[in-house]
Amino acid sequence: MNPKLEPHKTMMGDNPMLAPRYCGVPTFMRTPLVSDPTLVDIALIGVPYDGAVEARSGARQGPRQIRDMSSMMRAIHHVTRINPYELCRVGDMGDVPFNHIFDVKASHADITDFYERIRRAGAFPLSAGGDHSISLPILRSVASERPVGLIHIDAHTDCCDEEMNSKYSHGTPFRRAVEEELVDPGRTVQIGIRGAANSDECWTYGEKAGIRIIFMEEFTKMGVDNVIAEARRVVGEGPVYITFDVDGIDPAFTPGTGTPEIGGLTPVEVQALVRGFRGLEIIGADVVEVAPPFDPSGNTALVAATMMYEILCIFAESVAGRR
Amino acid sequence: MNPKLEPHKTMMGDNPMLAPRYCGVPTFMRTPLVSDPTLVDIALIGVPYDGAVEARSGARQGPRQIRDMSSMMRAIHHVTRINPYELCRVGDMGDVPFNHIFDVKASHADITDFYERIRRAGAFPLSAGGDHSISLPILRSVASERPVGLIHIDAHTDCCDEEMNSKYSHGTPFRRAVEEELVDPGRTVQIGIRGAANSDECWTYGEKAGIRIIFMEEFTKMGVDNVIAEARRVVGEGPVYITFDVDGIDPAFTPGTGTPEIGGLTPVEVQALVRGFRGLEIIGADVVEVAPPFDPSGNTALVAATMMYEILCIFAESVAGRR
Amino acid sequence: MNPKLEPHKTMMGDNPMLAPRYCGVPTFMRTPLVSDPTLVDIALIGVPYDGAVEARSGARQGPRQIRDMSSMMRAIHHVTRINPYELCRVGDMGDVPFNHIFDVKASHADITDFYERIRRAGAFPLSAGGDHSISLPILRSVASERPVGLIHIDAHTDCCDEEMNSKYSHGTPFRRAVEEELVDPGRTVQIGIRGAANSDECWTYGEKAGIRIIFMEEFTKMGVDNVIAEARRVVGEGPVYITFDVDGIDPAFTPGTGTPEIGGLTPVEVQALVRGFRGLEIIGADVVEVAPPFDPSGNTALVAATMMYEILCIFAESVAGRR
Amino acid sequence: MNPKLEPHKTMMGDNPMLAPRYCGVPTFMRTPLVSDPTLVDIALIGVPYDGAVEARSGARQGPRQIRDMSSMMRAIHHVTRINPYELCRVGDMGDVPFNHIFDVKASHADITDFYERIRRAGAFPLSAGGDHSISLPILRSVASERPVGLIHIDAHTDCCDEEMNSKYSHGTPFRRAVEEELVDPGRTVQIGIRGAANSDECWTYGEKAGIRIIFMEEFTKMGVDNVIAEARRVVGEGPVYITFDVDGIDPAFTPGTGTPEIGGLTPVEVQALVRGFRGLEIIGADVVEVAPPFDPSGNTALVAATMMYEILCIFAESVAGRR
Amino acid sequence: MNPKLEPHKTMMGDNPMLAPRYCGVPTFMRTPLVSDPTLVDIALIGVPYDGAVEARSGARQGPRQIRDMSSMMRAIHHVTRINPYELCRVGDMGDVPFNHIFDVKASHADITDFYERIRRAGAFPLSAGGDHSISLPILRSVASERPVGLIHIDAHTDCCDEEMNSKYSHGTPFRRAVEEELVDPGRTVQIGIRGAANSDECWTYGEKAGIRIIFMEEFTKMGVDNVIAEARRVVGEGPVYITFDVDGIDPAFTPGTGTPEIGGLTPVEVQALVRGFRGLEIIGADVVEVAPPFDPSGNTALVAATMMYEILCIFAESVAGRR
Amino acid sequence: MNPKLEPHKTMMGDNPMLAPRYCGVPTFMRTPLVSDPTLVDIALIGVPYDGAVEARSGARQGPRQIRDMSSMMRAIHHVTRINPYELCRVGDMGDVPFNHIFDVKASHADITDFYERIRRAGAFPLSAGGDHSISLPILRSVASERPVGLIHIDAHTDCCDEEMNSKYSHGTPFRRAVEEELVDPGRTVQIGIRGAANSDECWTYGEKAGIRIIFMEEFTKMGVDNVIAEARRVVGEGPVYITFDVDGIDPAFTPGTGTPEIGGLTPVEVQALVRGFRGLEIIGADVVEVAPPFDPSGNTALVAATMMYEILCIFAESVAGRR
Repeated sequence: MNPKLEPHKTMMGDNPMLAPRYCGVPTFMRTPLVSDPTLVDIALIGVPYDGAVEARSGARQGPRQIRDMSSMMRAIHHVTRINPYELCRVGDMGDVPFNHIFDVKASHADITDFYERIRRAGAFPLSAGGDHSISLPILRSVASERPVGLIHIDAHTDCCDEEMNSKYSHGTPFRRAVEEELVDPGRTVQIGIRGAANSDECWTYGEKAGIRIIFMEEFTKMGVDNVIAEARRVVGEGPVYITFDVDGIDPAFTPGTGTPEIGGLTPVEVQALVRGFRGLEIIGADVVEVAPPFDPSGNTALVAATMMYEILCIFAESVAGRR
Repeated sequence: MNPKLEPHKTMMGDNPMLAPRYCGVPTFMRTPLVSDPTLVDIALIGVPYDGAVEARSGARQGPRQIRDMSSMMRAIHHVTRINPYELCRVGDMGDVPFNHIFDVKASHADITDFYERIRRAGAFPLSAGGDHSISLPILRSVASERPVGLIHIDAHTDCCDEEMNSKYSHGTPFRRAVEEELVDPGRTVQIGIRGAANSDECWTYGEKAGIRIIFMEEFTKMGVDNVIAEARRVVGEGPVYITFDVDGIDPAFTPGTGTPEIGGLTPVEVQALVRGFRGLEIIGADVVEVAPPFDPSGNTALVAATMMYEILCIFAESVAGRR
Repeated sequence: MNPKLEPHKTMMGDNPMLAPRYCGVPTFMRTPLVSDPTLVDIALIGVPYDGAVEARSGARQGPRQIRDMSSMMRAIHHVTRINPYELCRVGDMGDVPFNHIFDVKASHADITDFYERIRRAGAFPLSAGGDHSISLPILRSVASERPVGLIHIDAHTDCCDEEMNSKYSHGTPFRRAVEEELVDPGRTVQIGIRGAANSDECWTYGEKAGIRIIFMEEFTKMGVDNVIAEARRVVGEGPVYITFDVDGIDPAFTPGTGTPEIGGLTPVEVQALVRGFRGLEIIGADVVEVAPPFDPSGNTALVAATMMYEILCIFAESVAGRR
Repeated sequence: MNPKLEPHKTMMGDNPMLAPRYCGVPTFMRTPLVSDPTLVDIALIGVPYDGAVEARSGARQGPRQIRDMSSMMRAIHHVTRINPYELCRVGDMGDVPFNHIFDVKASHADITDFYERIRRAGAFPLSAGGDHSISLPILRSVASERPVGLIHIDAHTDCCDEEMNSKYSHGTPFRRAVEEELVDPGRTVQIGIRGAANSDECWTYGEKAGIRIIFMEEFTKMGVDNVIAEARRVVGEGPVYITFDVDGIDPAFTPGTGTPEIGGLTPVEVQALVRGFRGLEIIGADVVEVAPPFDPSGNTALVAATMMYEILCIFAESVAGRR
Repeated sequence: MNPKLEPHKTMMGDNPMLAPRYCGVPTFMRTPLVSDPTLVDIALIGVPYDGAVEARSGARQGPRQIRDMSSMMRAIHHVTRINPYELCRVGDMGDVPFNHIFDVKASHADITDFYERIRRAGAFPLSAGGDHSISLPILRSVASERPVGLIHIDAHTDCCDEEMNSKYSHGTPFRRAVEEELVDPGRTVQIGIRGAANSDECWTYGEKAGIRIIFMEEFTKMGVDNVIAEARRVVGEGPVYITFDVDGIDPAFTPGTGTPEIGGLTPVEVQALVRGFRGLEIIGADVVEVAPPFDPSGNTALVAATMMYEILCIFAESVAGRR
Repeated sequence: MNPKLEPHKTMMGDNPMLAPRYCGVPTFMRTPLVSDPTLVDIALIGVPYDGAVEARSGARQGPRQIRDMSSMMRAIHHVTRINPYELCRVGDMGDVPFNHIFDVKASHADITDFYERIRRAGAFPLSAGGDHSISLPILRSVASERPVGLIHIDAHTDCCDEEMNSKYSHGTPFRRAVEEELVDPGRTVQIGIRGAANSDECWTYGEKAGIRIIFMEEFTKMGVDNVIAEARRVVGEGPVYITFDVDGIDPAFTPGTGTPEIGGLTPVEVQALVRGFRGLEIIGADVVEVAPPFDPSGNTALVAATMMYEILCIFAESVAGRR
């Protein structure tokens, strides 16, 4: 059986991944643009939504810039020598369509609907946001059958009860996800957490709920290898969802985001983390909070695209291994 | 009677308008920051809201950047030699506070509430947006007693019935304002309109309703002086509200906006327009759609601040003349 | 007969032109991405090539940024009320594939080959460059049967004999096109020409060859309407190719280009020109020299995309009228 | 006794720290704007002066951009759980007013005069520059009674005797401060020093005077914890002034500065340093050399604002403990 | 006699003006770098000084960026077909050296000293600033023998008596120049003046002194041709100095300046003005207030470089005609 | 014998290195501009060529921006206290002249010709690119007598056989250099290698050829000191060429490059590496792939200039020691 997906042919006729990086209509990683989810094992999806942001908006433009910069990606990983396209059928499913962009709940419902079509087709989603609120409606599909483990790289726990008098802002999704039993707090680890708060509930909630929070300072002291071991211990066996907010990284590397917090992780560290999660049973992942207006250079989106590629490698290996 | 308002004293003790432009906490035009609307004749107000934008957001950050760049303003107009601060008490009332930023209608209600306090105190508002949807809740206060005339400079008529399935986006406020009898379509003129549309209703509505639309091409052919005469003919006697969307100007001059349309007005032309409206009975005005993330240089905000100052001059003269 | 082309369906299922502008994989004007040229009447094509630039390169990235910004376009022209998508089948054919990007002649051959497939299918090309050298290999296809008339908006005549010791740089294409009898110099008009030169041959060649050069100064003196009349007189009856170099416009409006010359046309003027060419027998057109690295804001590409749309309107009307 | 300062009320009536970050007139950390220094324990002060810069100017605009970005700050520190606003009354005293901005000595006198008013009122200053020359006139007030210890984070020792034939440039303040017996060289540590020089006196002066210089290379070898221990050993008991030049950090993190030196500290390291100085008797501090024109993104100012917040936490604890 | 100056030879051996624009060490217009003023008829000089700026500094970096962008210039003017290098020996004399950059008067003396060497050698200066205060010390040399006529293109009259308590800021040079009898107010014309002021003395001084001020509004009404005629009438016969502040142009074209005023001249208009001054007895000229930090794109410097070239053409013709 | 080279005198008469950084025509490190290679021991050379780039071009503009930013350099190294200008005569030889910029092989021949003149004069080159393809024609001169050792810092091995169907792109130079016996693979070390590839030949070639590749991950694990030791072991005795591609560093520090790969080295690490190569027999070096359009801030060029200075220090010591 050949798992490779036929590339979306234009008149070029060639493999778009071999063309110069600046050529062609940009799909994620220059994979084929497909509309039928049964054609893919892993679906790359854009979620251009930032209606739940309380600080600086702009993440609605994230999927476009990530697609554009993702043309810099290539096939074979230089460390693991994984070629995800040999392991799985990978395609770009386009963006989630929205019907009521000015209504948070309705938009979240649009997201869940779209992911349900992916799930029912047997495919797994790797998404590009969008603000972090999108993880909740994605999880409502991906984790609809049982709570999942969560690896969460971020400056913020996103576990507030309310933000700006709303239960559904980008500062609250994982509290909701725990409450809705989509995420198992005992199998949840949050890495890179830092930055002041007006109330300490964003940290104490998780501590009480059983979430393992590795603050930035603990990360620095432990070192990457120990953090990987600890995260693997926490998530243990079973399905895992990976969510990566680019503000987990220091804003010198990812300035294009709405709520930057200085003193963050480096890309070297996050790459090491992701590679350290090889072998987990990954059932979905997202990269969120890329806000292009704050980084017209595209470097933030390049970090996001590369992290999507890093995740794709271990994700494809995991999916292929479960077949 | 001395109409001048005592400047907000810091330890500086001096008139902030005489300090170097980069000094001090930036209020609009370096006017005093006041909380009591009875202390002012004209209230400068920020409306940091962009929750009704369907394209590129960012106008929520507009008031801050406009305040910052407005320090470049000075007192005496070089053409009319009007010094608005000699004619009226002018102060910065801060920003409208919002309680439910993720809900368009609730946010609009917050705006109207704030402006009602201004109105009841007998002051007149000159506002900085924010997206163009804010004009509607402002008019609900300013025009609560009778429909007003409207001078509307913009690339778009903002008279759609719905946008993205919503009646209250930044593409619909003046249709609503006509329907709610806040604006008299027969006393309304729209200047600088241009750009393609997916439906022609945005143009035909106004034509049917009796709005005088001066498309960009007609503007070029008529010339500024004739446009002024026509606009004055349309609005005639009675109270007039001026609303200026910075995308009415060509994006070379005002790139920091969410929905740029090339081929627009120049600042020279808009300054001439505003000066041409001298003597009208102005009861409110706004400058909207400055989206700082798309122009970190601040030049768009400088255009907006200068237009606020241009309007302030004729506004102060009008208010002083009515006393 | 229904001339409309079915949009490229993703799971969205909707007309991409009605979605928010920041959504979806960006094709030119959000038209369907097609690989079979018989499905379209007008083919939108990207030519990501800048290997013949002697100054600042970057135009290889032009098609991507133009596609991205072209999502701001909509269907109905506000002046002519033309909807090109009602008149013709319009699709994005992707980018020309290149086999030897380091070799100018080979790259030009790749371009001609691609356009020959379009021509043989009976479709007409509207292209986005790329540097101006691409017009030559395009004309080798489009004008292969007889010399065509040429409307050329630019700061430079691009009629040098050699540049940097090469006959095929972006400063020479129209000299070659005349020599190769692709372009009829007697039916050629160049508009907006300006800027110093180290030799006056770039101007005297055209004068001797019978090309009508309207320098920037003459343009200013004549006014747009007279320039349109003169251009129509020059090109007369018969097939016409329109080539628009964005450096014809002043760099305040189009900074994203490799060889800016101050003191240029305004977008208002170029829009008026294009609309003035309504009714000509247009057989092809291009918009070139958008170099995104020099304008990360995308405003230059927005100008280019809007001019493509302006041309598309008169082009579609012309093609529909010839059926 | 309630040490909290009543927030500067606008019509909002709310705690500005709870509003969205982009709202309101930006004061430092969204603290109240006050003019009476007896109302505060710690005075946040802007010093918009860069008249003593020999390289690239722009730091005069620093206080504004730092104020703007400081709205991203919140109350409770995530490591120490210190809430400085619970410990001390903290307010924004505005900017130092200048009478002769073209005269370095006169400007320095204006600075000292302003700080004397703070000092006489019993408050302690936390300042945002401005170029590094401002530390000298600040110390002339803060250290007027006895020499103080100095913790100095910077790429440069700022201990030249003369720069551009001047004794009072931004490269000389700490040599003057030692000479004027404002700073005790035996209780002075300089951290992060690096970059070539045309004379080695900038390094040898301090070595001879008894200053402990920890060059960047030594910092890397020692590690943060040992540097903290060494710095605490040097400053020992007694009052300490902290001065942080943002060019101590690598310019990838703080590009908005006039004299960048590559190969610098990271924000993670500087945050660790500041937290390591908890418990010292801090009597003043400044953050200097933020030059916004070189970083319109505001990320440099975000680093500066966050470091001000980090310092504020240990400063407030120190001040509260001394009451 | 051959007036051409041998180009500064590097190993290239070629005429640098024929190399690609991005090659070589950038001198003004790629002319030879010379140290002996007797070798040139017209000396191109950089004056990297902005110590007299009260708003945003940065013009100290102007000469470098103008030199860099001036490589885009070529030899033959497309309208007049003047080749200034055929008419005069033109060379880059480098930058004025400064001994006391923190002292305005001393810096002005350094400027005058440098220009006296030029003048004594019989050469004429064409300068690139630097802030506008530099025109005064230049005039102290150039106009040392008799008052000269002045053509002054600017948003501001720069005729304040004092600015920030100083007689020698960039807002005062031409008042001083009249007082010092360097400039004949009756032969002085100021074009493009606009923008509010805190006192009207900046306008009334000139009116009383006999200066002809053409405000922006009058410029628009008169049209370029009439302004040229009026300016020629004012300056009449005799030596003329041309001073061009880039803020005379609208900031969309020249954002890189410290005191932008919207609503200004266009490059097309200023080019027409300069060409209209052909035949005047030009004895010196400067282009000032290019502040690169506010326009990293270099487009402002391109405007400045092009205006230097435009002036050079009429200057060289004038100098050659007087020989 | 006095090895110092007389600075290129302008009328300034002073040592340009002591002037403010923004003054003067920018040569590399503010060294004299010389045309006779016998006057220097170490020749600083610009190679403004990027015709062999397959991704984003722009490195043709590298030498100019590096020269500009190199004015920030000074004489004495703060760690080693080496003053290279005391040890060697160092001058700026200008840029390589190109005759056929559109032809890769001809351009490479132009480079070799230029370097042969340097070599024959007994000088050693320290170059600023340009794309990485330039190292091959430089080595054809520098290594013409025997294969040399190579220290190669980069994200990519640049050892492809072909790229875009070309043997001479910027992805192939070191494969060609090994084949042409210019470089001894057994004395070659590549440091910082990372990023995915479409074929693994770029890594396996070197492994088979005997090149020591230290991938980024191994670098992180080994630490700088061990990497230095390993590199010294590999290159051993004999002549060594150092080639530094700025994309070896993480793009947060060096965004201005055409093929950024996240997760790279830091400037602190690269500075440590270079200092660790003190004492090697260096016979040439280059710093390549600075593409200014992608970093208008100049910070990338500042990194490049500083690395040139770091290399210059150990290079001068090596050259002086061999005399």
